[in-house]
Amino acid sequence: MKVNGKAYRTVWMEDGVVKVIHQALLPHIFKIVDLPDHRAVAEAISSMIIRGAGAIGDVAGYGMAQVAREAPDEGFWDYVNSGAQRLRQTRPTAQNLFYAVKKVLDAMKAAPNIKEARRIAQEVAQGIADADAAQCEAIGRYGADLIKDGARVLTHCNAGWLAFADWGSALAPIYMAKRQGKKVFVFADETRPRCQGAILTAWELYQEDVDYAVIADNAAGYFMHRGDVDLVITGADRIAANGDTANKIGTYEKAVLAHENGVPFYIAAPSSTIDLQCPSGDAIPIEERSEEEVLGAVGLTAEGVVTRVRITHAKAHARNPGFDVTPARYIAGIITEHGISKPDKIKLIKPS
Amino acid sequence: MKVNGKAYRTVWMEDGVVKVIHQALLPHIFKIVDLPDHRAVAEAISSMIIRGAGAIGDVAGYGMAQVAREAPDEGFWDYVNSGAQRLRQTRPTAQNLFYAVKKVLDAMKAAPNIKEARRIAQEVAQGIADADAAQCEAIGRYGADLIKDGARVLTHCNAGWLAFADWGSALAPIYMAKRQGKKVFVFADETRPRCQGAILTAWELYQEDVDYAVIADNAAGYFMHRGDVDLVITGADRIAANGDTANKIGTYEKAVLAHENGVPFYIAAPSSTIDLQCPSGDAIPIEERSEEEVLGAVGLTAEGVVTRVRITHAKAHARNPGFDVTPARYIAGIITEHGISKPDKIKLIKPS
Repeated sequence: MKVNGKAYRTVWMEDGVVKVIHQALLPHIFKIVDLPDHRAVAEAISSMIIRGAGAIGDVAGYGMAQVAREAPDEGFWDYVNSGAQRLRQTRPTAQNLFYAVKKVLDAMKAAPNIKEARRIAQEVAQGIADADAAQCEAIGRYGADLIKDGARVLTHCNAGWLAFADWGSALAPIYMAKRQGKKVFVFADETRPRCQGAILTAWELYQEDVDYAVIADNAAGYFMHRGDVDLVITGADRIAANGDTANKIGTYEKAVLAHENGVPFYIAAPSSTIDLQCPSGDAIPIEERSEEEVLGAVGLTAEGVVTRVRITHAKAHARNPGFDVTPARYIAGIITEHGISKPDKIKLIKPS
Repeated sequence: MKVNGKAYRTVWMEDGVVKVIHQALLPHIFKIVDLPDHRAVAEAISSMIIRGAGAIGDVAGYGMAQVAREAPDEGFWDYVNSGAQRLRQTRPTAQNLFYAVKKVLDAMKAAPNIKEARRIAQEVAQGIADADAAQCEAIGRYGADLIKDGARVLTHCNAGWLAFADWGSALAPIYMAKRQGKKVFVFADETRPRCQGAILTAWELYQEDVDYAVIADNAAGYFMHRGDVDLVITGADRIAANGDTANKIGTYEKAVLAHENGVPFYIAAPSSTIDLQCPSGDAIPIEERSEEEVLGAVGLTAEGVVTRVRITHAKAHARNPGFDVTPARYIAGIITEHGISKPDKIKLIKPS
């Protein structure tokens, strides 16, 4: 997608160097970071310079291609295995990370010789990122059919292209509808406490010239009740076999409000998000994050310095569940790269 | 209620000087401000050193008592009328302001002479604040019956004692239940964009030694769905004749979520909040506030300076409705100083 009028992916590789958009500096600074070797890639993942399920898998795949380039002929497999391990340890809960590392490693092991293993690593890594972008584009194509000309879409958190190689999941249908010449307006929930909607979604939409307004999470119901929202689309962290969906805290609230106001609520996610081992939302553990996130906010001061401020008194307490589960009954459909499914049919989808 | 272990009202009068808790400095600094004359009172209202429906009425009443003290015998009524006008112009939408100014003025006009008018102004002003505190205490008494030992109450925004002379509306039942020896836990919605829950409610509860946790507004539904919330109590800005209730943006979301999860949702407000001229919520205009509130946050830096930070990119847009309307069908009961009414019976209540 576009930044300052130029097309970018979130992560790509040039002459052995992995390049990523520095996401921790957004929206205040747009910077491309060069990651010359797999150690730098590992560091970029663990410090969250790059984040988002798809993008983490993509960059880890490229990191494995670097491992293969760096590994000396003598002790090649020792180096490769230890590099793979280094990448795996960066974000222990990121499914796509393990998937990408394993995919490159398995392909390398099947190669007839070291030279071929290096070539294959590069090829498979590129294939992972390309497949990610293609899946998101397909989500965009299917999802765009739901968006009429003049539609007003509400979204929560950031399931945009920054979380993948390109296009995104929840925002892909919006970008595609715009390319189809439709007029679209987006209500972007700010998504406290980390404000990914205000920080990332608003920035993406601005760069892609999509009309939008950031709203307090509190205002979503107000706009739905007034009839100002035609549909809701959010991403997903994990979709259980029965269609129950875990996503950023607050998604459940929007789904209930959409249901109450007759607004269709959609989930958009690549099929890799579906976890058939998980029978229902009750089996999805919810991470409770640091209370500091709720007690303060991060932003730019008038002097141009990115600063954390504490909103509450010094001794305040908070609870901070990071995710919630939206029961399948509130979900009108789940948009994957294979089409739009009813939540109770999600278990029939064959993962890509 | 208590601050640092000592009992305070939000506003009071000593030897002709009006004293108020400086609410714009909370929760970072606790300071009592002396307002030596009615001009200082007017300034304190318009600069929001004092805020909250009840408290504004109380301080305006005391301001009128100051007007009466200041007015010279010669030109007494000219001075009084112009002082009343100065107070009225400070917050043109604050109903309690007009009510209090009129109440003192009418009583003064009925006095047989100037000396008596001065005495009566003081007496009526004190009566307004005392009645405010007594009404809130009565709300607390009725509301406490809804709170079982060990109850977990969710509230939105700040309808605490800082918004009145004492006790508050939504928080009064909690304070009363605690005095009755019950154990109470409060989920305090942070209430973006202005964070009155995180800033004021959390501070009040801490000072009164009530267990609480601040939560992102997004997390309220999560806790209700888990069965962690026994009831919801919020305040009200305006209650229509059919029981529809306008309150801080996000109240409607909590009411719908409570309804969906079988959690009783109560409004607590003095009967003066009921507007029988207003047939239903559709007739209540909703103020749209500055988008800057949504695009940023205000808090204390590590260096101890209260600072505004911008969360979004520099050119971001926002929509910022300040209030929403909760339809009567979501409201289990409205707690006033006269008892607990079903919303469809609210028009039978005779305002105090």
